[in-house]
Amino acid sequence: VVGTDFDAAVLGRADERGLIDSAISHLPAAVAQANLVVFCTPVDCIAASALAAVSHCQLGALLTDVGSVKASIVRELQGKLPGHVSFIGSHPLAGSEKHGLENARADLFDGRLVVVTPGSSALQENETRIADFWRALGARVTFMSPEEHDRAVGLTSHLPHLLASALAAALPAEWAHLAASGFRDTTRLAAGSPDLWTSIFRTNREPVLAALALLEGKLASFRQSLTDDDAAEFNRLLAEGKVIRDSLHANK
Amino acid sequence: VVGTDFDAAVLGRADERGLIDSAISHLPAAVAQANLVVFCTPVDCIAASALAAVSHCQLGALLTDVGSVKASIVRELQGKLPGHVSFIGSHPLAGSEKHGLENARADLFDGRLVVVTPGSSALQENETRIADFWRALGARVTFMSPEEHDRAVGLTSHLPHLLASALAAALPAEWAHLAASGFRDTTRLAAGSPDLWTSIFRTNREPVLAALALLEGKLASFRQSLTDDDAAEFNRLLAEGKVIRDSLHANK
Repeated sequence: VVGTDFDAAVLGRADERGLIDSAISHLPAAVAQANLVVFCTPVDCIAASALAAVSHCQLGALLTDVGSVKASIVRELQGKLPGHVSFIGSHPLAGSEKHGLENARADLFDGRLVVVTPGSSALQENETRIADFWRALGARVTFMSPEEHDRAVGLTSHLPHLLASALAAALPAEWAHLAASGFRDTTRLAAGSPDLWTSIFRTNREPVLAALALLEGKLASFRQSLTDDDAAEFNRLLAEGKVIRDSLHANK
Repeated sequence: VVGTDFDAAVLGRADERGLIDSAISHLPAAVAQANLVVFCTPVDCIAASALAAVSHCQLGALLTDVGSVKASIVRELQGKLPGHVSFIGSHPLAGSEKHGLENARADLFDGRLVVVTPGSSALQENETRIADFWRALGARVTFMSPEEHDRAVGLTSHLPHLLASALAAALPAEWAHLAASGFRDTTRLAAGSPDLWTSIFRTNREPVLAALALLEGKLASFRQSLTDDDAAEFNRLLAEGKVIRDSLHANK
């Protein structure tokens, strides 16, 4: 396992902790050692990093990433990869609002789902190599197109983050002592890195805006039934959410 | 500790489990035994239950409750209580989406905050009795007016519930397997009882609508900066939420 990072201090700490077998700060030299390259930069830098690396990659090298958005990477790489390397995106649904190697955990991927997003021209053989890599780390694998992945996570991941941030921002300081476990859980995602998440949101704008419009429609229904004091309709809306939420317990 | 319930089966199970010292199914007979009466019904039944009980209460009996909304109870009791009893509302910020005596825990109130909401005519002596009762159960106590309490929990408790329900309801079944811990945490409150929560929302309509309008304004800011691809403004909005969310860790 070869590690590389633009920040020599980070690379040094990763080496000290034994998280990598060797530290090589020069990206071209690092990728020349690898048959599989995993890009773990902010999502809006992944395509540029890959393009900076490809001419130095081994014959048959496979490139992947761990970014939360996929279609924009595929678009940026379109027609720019030399024939001796391939890119297939990955998105592990693992981790938390904590980041950096200080929060690394050997069991991070155990039982977690990784979405692998082959483009239309991906070879079956390479899809299998990527899936086997994640399964070797303990993960389960599912395949989706980059575009469907982005629409799905726009709703399941990016929209909850946006709601958590908006709700946290709406809390006046004088009521903060009343924020109990319900408020804390609902806003947990708001603790994430603004820089990291701004890049995620910017690269997935259209799907996020569509998910937000869907949610605003649900909120408008709640508002209308509350304004009308229509208890039956309000109860039905709550019950609709409960059925879906309860169904998530089973596959936790 | 005398327990009473309209449902004889529930009362019987509470007695069997030793959660109460004696079970009396007839409300007038039960309250006649008590110098402190705690109403734990759905919030829209508390005032009616109290009015059904008061003529049978002991001289000097103090009535309280555990409802999530306070001003509507005060309004319904206004001018209707006989002189030999007093009502001061309470709202323990404890519990979860689980309910019923099967989920009872002896440490439920340990270190939790209880908001005690004396009306303008409450006696200092009775405020102290109520506060001492909750402190004896391990809780911390704060005092607010019923009206300010309702505005505060409309934002800190009811609004998160509404958001959780709306977000859960927006999840298409085909993407449910992608709902990871972020989605689960943000929607946890949606698992609550629709009947119980419909009564809470109905009794706190105006404060909830005000909190929802505030939140919708925050969402509109996020939407605008995303539509404009204004990364600096979007980052600022995320950072605003993060500062507030991070400040909650300290007093968890």
